Amino acid sequence: MRKTQDTKVEMELKMRNIKLTIEYDGTNYHGWQSQINAKSIQDEITLAINKLTGEDCKLIGASRTDLGVHAFGQIANFMTASTIPTEKFAFALNTILARDISVKMSEEVSLDFHSRYSSIGKKYKYIIYNSRQPSALMRNRAWHIHQKLDMSDMLNASKFFIGTHDFSAFKAAGSSTKSSVRTISDISLVSNDELIQIEVIGDGFLYNMVRIIAGTLVYVGLQKIDYNDITSIIESKDRKKSGKTAPAQGLYLVEVYY
Amino acid sequence: MRKTQDTKVEMELKMRNIKLTIEYDGTNYHGWQSQINAKSIQDEITLAINKLTGEDCKLIGASRTDLGVHAFGQIANFMTASTIPTEKFAFALNTILARDISVKMSEEVSLDFHSRYSSIGKKYKYIIYNSRQPSALMRNRAWHIHQKLDMSDMLNASKFFIGTHDFSAFKAAGSSTKSSVRTISDISLVSNDELIQIEVIGDGFLYNMVRIIAGTLVYVGLQKIDYNDITSIIESKDRKKSGKTAPAQGLYLVEVYY
Repeated sequence: MRKTQDTKVEMELKMRNIKLTIEYDGTNYHGWQSQINAKSIQDEITLAINKLTGEDCKLIGASRTDLGVHAFGQIANFMTASTIPTEKFAFALNTILARDISVKMSEEVSLDFHSRYSSIGKKYKYIIYNSRQPSALMRNRAWHIHQKLDMSDMLNASKFFIGTHDFSAFKAAGSSTKSSVRTISDISLVSNDELIQIEVIGDGFLYNMVRIIAGTLVYVGLQKIDYNDITSIIESKDRKKSGKTAPAQGLYLVEVYY
Repeated sequence: MRKTQDTKVEMELKMRNIKLTIEYDGTNYHGWQSQINAKSIQDEITLAINKLTGEDCKLIGASRTDLGVHAFGQIANFMTASTIPTEKFAFALNTILARDISVKMSEEVSLDFHSRYSSIGKKYKYIIYNSRQPSALMRNRAWHIHQKLDMSDMLNASKFFIGTHDFSAFKAAGSSTKSSVRTISDISLVSNDELIQIEVIGDGFLYNMVRIIAGTLVYVGLQKIDYNDITSIIESKDRKKSGKTAPAQGLYLVEVYY
């Protein structure tokens, strides 16, 4: 049994934890999370790593983005005993993956790094296309609102989200988490021609939270909700008081903080 | 024959020339121009107009964009005797067209307006994605250059294109036009993270001219061409002296001027 033990020790010694930064167009996938009978981004990357290393890899993602949601900077990590140089993983995986998934960077991190649990915050972006007619180029990448939105009211409304609040009014009905208290450290709204981009930075997000915030800001822009009522909507903890859930295709996971 | 004549006169009286502003994602089409056995944007829109009006329309486009080239503001016009209100065409056509073509506006113009011949200039944009790894979200929408480009050299080079020149060195080999003299009134280069956007405004463009200018600027950015040599390359009128033709997917027709 000598040989087996040696090999095991050697394997542990050369075990590396690889962190991937991943961009994807979520249009053609059923979200990040591995699923039976549906193409997921997690499965596509896991299969590519397995093919490359010959190992059976377990890929941990920072955020379980939903069907249709995109990412500029999803983070995932996996352990490997392979001898492939760390920085080569990005290039090698991209030669295997479909072109709508791209590994932007591969880095070695400490063995206790965990994409989800080590995260201390995230930045999301939500894109609205505000124009009479829809956009061909943004068709799967933004929420088309054909009525003119009042940017000034939306800007005023956005400020009320900043801070530590119980965001129960901004989580999907039926989603269960121990606490609904989250801290939003910053929200910015930028409009450029027909595009309105909402960026939200927080320590964590409840299920659908960014999409419900985006939907609520759109209701403010449409004068369906008064921007002075945002605080009382938050305090109500009532999902029925906030705006509709904005569609998935406008949402982008931009960055995960560690 | 009385009735027929009356109808003809009436038809002419109510004949309108409709100008469409069109955005499209060129990825899934064999260019603007109608083709046998291949899907073209011109054909898709013509069929949609025919379906809407019941007439046999002749659609004239301002620019024959190639396979894979996109547009934010292609212009096309057609004559109609239908009673559909002018401003309703955009909305009605979008209900028929696939989502990768969108009519942004429909306006009535004078009967002698011709999308191509009335045009006095155009603005094109070329997008380069300059990063080690490719972009998933820009995969069909930019030219991926993985070596670092020298923006300062590219900016210096771009200035030499401005003015009235014989652009023979910047037209596709074999393309025949009476004159190769064109005026570029402005070129701007903007870089934003990994994206480099080149905007070119001119009175007219030779076949592949913007793509060869983009390819030449990339060669400058890679130090394959010295920016001080641009003038002598233009003066040489020799296609072999300029850079490669940049791929179609990075090119966008932004605006047509009248």
